[in-house]
Amino acid sequence: MKKEVKKEKPKELTNLKEKASKISKEDKSIGISVKKEQDMPLWYEQVCLKAEVADFGPVKGTMIIRPNGYAIWQAIQDYFNEHIVKATGTRNAYFPLFIPESFFKKEAEHAQGFSPEVAWLDKEVSGEGERIAIRPTSETIMYDSYSKWIRSYKDLPLKMNQWCNVVRWETQATKLFLRSREFLWQEGHCVYETEEECVKDTINYIELYAKLCKDLLALPTMIGQKTEKEKFAGAKATYAIEAFMPDGKALQCGTSHNLGQGFAKAFNISFLGRDEKPHSPWQNSWGLSTRLLGAVIMTHSDNKGLVLPPRAAENKLVIVPIIIAKDNAPKIKAQELLKQLKDFNPILDDRDSISAGYKFSEWEMKGIPLRIEIGPRDIKENKIVVARRDTGEKTSITMNSKLNEEINKILEKMHSDLLKKAQTNLDSSIVKVKDMPELIKAIKDNKLAEANFCGSDKCEDYIKEKTQGASSRCMPFNKNPEKTTKCVYCNKPAKHIVYFSRSY
Amino acid sequence: MKKEVKKEKPKELTNLKEKASKISKEDKSIGISVKKEQDMPLWYEQVCLKAEVADFGPVKGTMIIRPNGYAIWQAIQDYFNEHIVKATGTRNAYFPLFIPESFFKKEAEHAQGFSPEVAWLDKEVSGEGERIAIRPTSETIMYDSYSKWIRSYKDLPLKMNQWCNVVRWETQATKLFLRSREFLWQEGHCVYETEEECVKDTINYIELYAKLCKDLLALPTMIGQKTEKEKFAGAKATYAIEAFMPDGKALQCGTSHNLGQGFAKAFNISFLGRDEKPHSPWQNSWGLSTRLLGAVIMTHSDNKGLVLPPRAAENKLVIVPIIIAKDNAPKIKAQELLKQLKDFNPILDDRDSISAGYKFSEWEMKGIPLRIEIGPRDIKENKIVVARRDTGEKTSITMNSKLNEEINKILEKMHSDLLKKAQTNLDSSIVKVKDMPELIKAIKDNKLAEANFCGSDKCEDYIKEKTQGASSRCMPFNKNPEKTTKCVYCNKPAKHIVYFSRSY
Repeated sequence: MKKEVKKEKPKELTNLKEKASKISKEDKSIGISVKKEQDMPLWYEQVCLKAEVADFGPVKGTMIIRPNGYAIWQAIQDYFNEHIVKATGTRNAYFPLFIPESFFKKEAEHAQGFSPEVAWLDKEVSGEGERIAIRPTSETIMYDSYSKWIRSYKDLPLKMNQWCNVVRWETQATKLFLRSREFLWQEGHCVYETEEECVKDTINYIELYAKLCKDLLALPTMIGQKTEKEKFAGAKATYAIEAFMPDGKALQCGTSHNLGQGFAKAFNISFLGRDEKPHSPWQNSWGLSTRLLGAVIMTHSDNKGLVLPPRAAENKLVIVPIIIAKDNAPKIKAQELLKQLKDFNPILDDRDSISAGYKFSEWEMKGIPLRIEIGPRDIKENKIVVARRDTGEKTSITMNSKLNEEINKILEKMHSDLLKKAQTNLDSSIVKVKDMPELIKAIKDNKLAEANFCGSDKCEDYIKEKTQGASSRCMPFNKNPEKTTKCVYCNKPAKHIVYFSRSY
Repeated sequence: MKKEVKKEKPKELTNLKEKASKISKEDKSIGISVKKEQDMPLWYEQVCLKAEVADFGPVKGTMIIRPNGYAIWQAIQDYFNEHIVKATGTRNAYFPLFIPESFFKKEAEHAQGFSPEVAWLDKEVSGEGERIAIRPTSETIMYDSYSKWIRSYKDLPLKMNQWCNVVRWETQATKLFLRSREFLWQEGHCVYETEEECVKDTINYIELYAKLCKDLLALPTMIGQKTEKEKFAGAKATYAIEAFMPDGKALQCGTSHNLGQGFAKAFNISFLGRDEKPHSPWQNSWGLSTRLLGAVIMTHSDNKGLVLPPRAAENKLVIVPIIIAKDNAPKIKAQELLKQLKDFNPILDDRDSISAGYKFSEWEMKGIPLRIEIGPRDIKENKIVVARRDTGEKTSITMNSKLNEEINKILEKMHSDLLKKAQTNLDSSIVKVKDMPELIKAIKDNKLAEANFCGSDKCEDYIKEKTQGASSRCMPFNKNPEKTTKCVYCNKPAKHIVYFSRSY
């Protein structure tokens, strides 16, 4: 690394900042300038920037998660800590960002899988040249500690999770949330006495991920096992949930790995069993990242901007008093509503100098699930108008003691409608293919091809080549090929049913 | 940096791991081997390791926060998000770990203050040699974005906070929680239209910190302004809360900086005012870190191990059934209690092969606030015994519908007793000193010297030299010197009352 530093701003940096600045500032007033169905990547970038969900960081490939985006992440964290961490008896912890290089070398496949994208520090562990990695994932540093902490079967199962940032020095083009050099995630790392417990829990965690996506984010996913080629570096088996985006690409939303005993052996984790003899334990790891925000945004949002699934929205509604002929009554009523509806964490937009129409557009851009309009006539009739962000549907509701209940019903209906719509999209994207021409056509049509498959890496490579980029996404749970079926590529007996598609 | 990597473990690393391993494993059964009053640093390290609050990381100067420690941090986060973030209209966000070197150079004092301890990446922002820093603090990267986001007085105040890890490559000896090369913290960064709002809020945040310490952690602090010498690099004024440890050292627990307009000018943040002219805004930043866990542990814990302040304890009580002559009734009753007391997130310890005495010691070591004992006689009398971790005091309570209320009262009493005890320690440590011999004696006696002070850096340097290390901790709010008093060192007119002491 050169030590002198030039004073001018480096070129790439300037370009990136100019680009961000161009999109986020100059276009501010004009909404989203491209349509989702026309240019999804540009539409997506505009939604992220204009809804103030995210922005570009100054170092290439890094991103800023703005409050409107971070609030979604916090909703995920809260759900996760309650329904996954606490519910499974897992506990949160925090391990260092810095990992000695030697740790990575202990598990050969893992080392190979991660080495190209590790970022290193300009320091050394000692004066003897051992480099320090910025964590790309924490298996190695956690298992080093586990080897000190675990002595007996009484210490098992050990179930730990951490929320942290990880760094992977991507060389591919980066995209907000979907591919960035730093991202936030949780990584769970458990140790078990028996293989049976380990496998059961590994699958349980991926099922809990799918439930989180569905219940909190109205996001349907495919759930299944990864092929040998796509599994995690060092794992015995990887399970994944995959969402399918409107542009015909799958987006991996979470993975859970059965690590077998490989890491335990490499890191010298052993326990004294019930038989008073030493044993190697079984391990799993499981993770879900801020990538998930990309899936949520792409799935639900539209040409007016962000659409937030109501259960994950920080502010479930915005109250806009409609002022006509300087009649202040709607403003006063809006203040009352603000108190009555406080469980929904409402926003009150009673700014004077801005038109109601402009306010509607602004809150639509930011994805607030419900808008409450209250004008002089509504007050006379003791009613309010509730408009849904996703459908635009308006409902007139009487202001009485059941108001909160009614609003809650609309929010829950919105959740189930968003989920249903996304599920229909996913279901209708799956095309069963019998042979390669059908598979190639399905991918060309931006579909998800369901194929019989032999399981070999080689066939997977060929399929990728022939389809110009489709990869295996997962082998769905509870779907098995009939005995007589053949691999879509090589015609050898099929072992699995596999979904193939392009992906993020 | 040398590129080849030797296979042997570097020496320092091995030593550190051996040390950790020695303390955390071999000594496991024998409790804490040194007394708090005899060797506080070693006692503290043993409490952290044996209560499984923390452990050493493999890279020198890094630490692992184990679940028993992370739970305290989560309690702080939950309180903070509710009572500080939400209550002040602040919003959480996340900015990148990586900061271009040029950003640091924009504010001269700030650059100088942080440059010695910045860790750099082995990558560059561009091919032109600009280094990438791992954030030691985020003023520079956040304010670069602020300059893009802020346009008008309507965008103000902008109040943002982030929870993250920061890295400072300490060269001094590191201590668990108190000084480590990576730690977790929150950093708030706000922008205001006027100086008045800014100053008011800067002080409000430090007062909210003091309230958090008192209300959640039973930790009394001194609250005041830092001297010119001790203020934050680049700030106009720094406010701090300082706790005072039993060994006579102050521990800074949180700071809030009025940054004035210096950063705004350096980062080109300006807004169109109500007068339609451009103005520089006022800014503050404020932070509180995992250091605070060190203060909590040192203040309350004792020779039996950790003492957790009850409001911050994840598990407020442990239930231990006392089995005599294979009578299973206590176990059954304990199961019932586990359900009835679920609001306290109780632990049930009904392990068979372990004696009650051993269990008591284990949960005392881990600092669980209350222990509930239930034996055959208690069942007959329809009572349980509740033992307080801090005092050992036992209360017999009738099992009826008021049980939860009674237990809550004991927890609240424990909180106020811990706070009172710590407050008494703090108050009795303050010694008003008239001259240097008195100041030197106070420091020698491990006290906190309250002195009249002129405010000059030079006098502060001399005092540090003469006392072998005492520094100014803060100029307490609401305390001003009388007009005729002189500086404790130079005899020039005193401008402030200052607390001096040694510190962590």
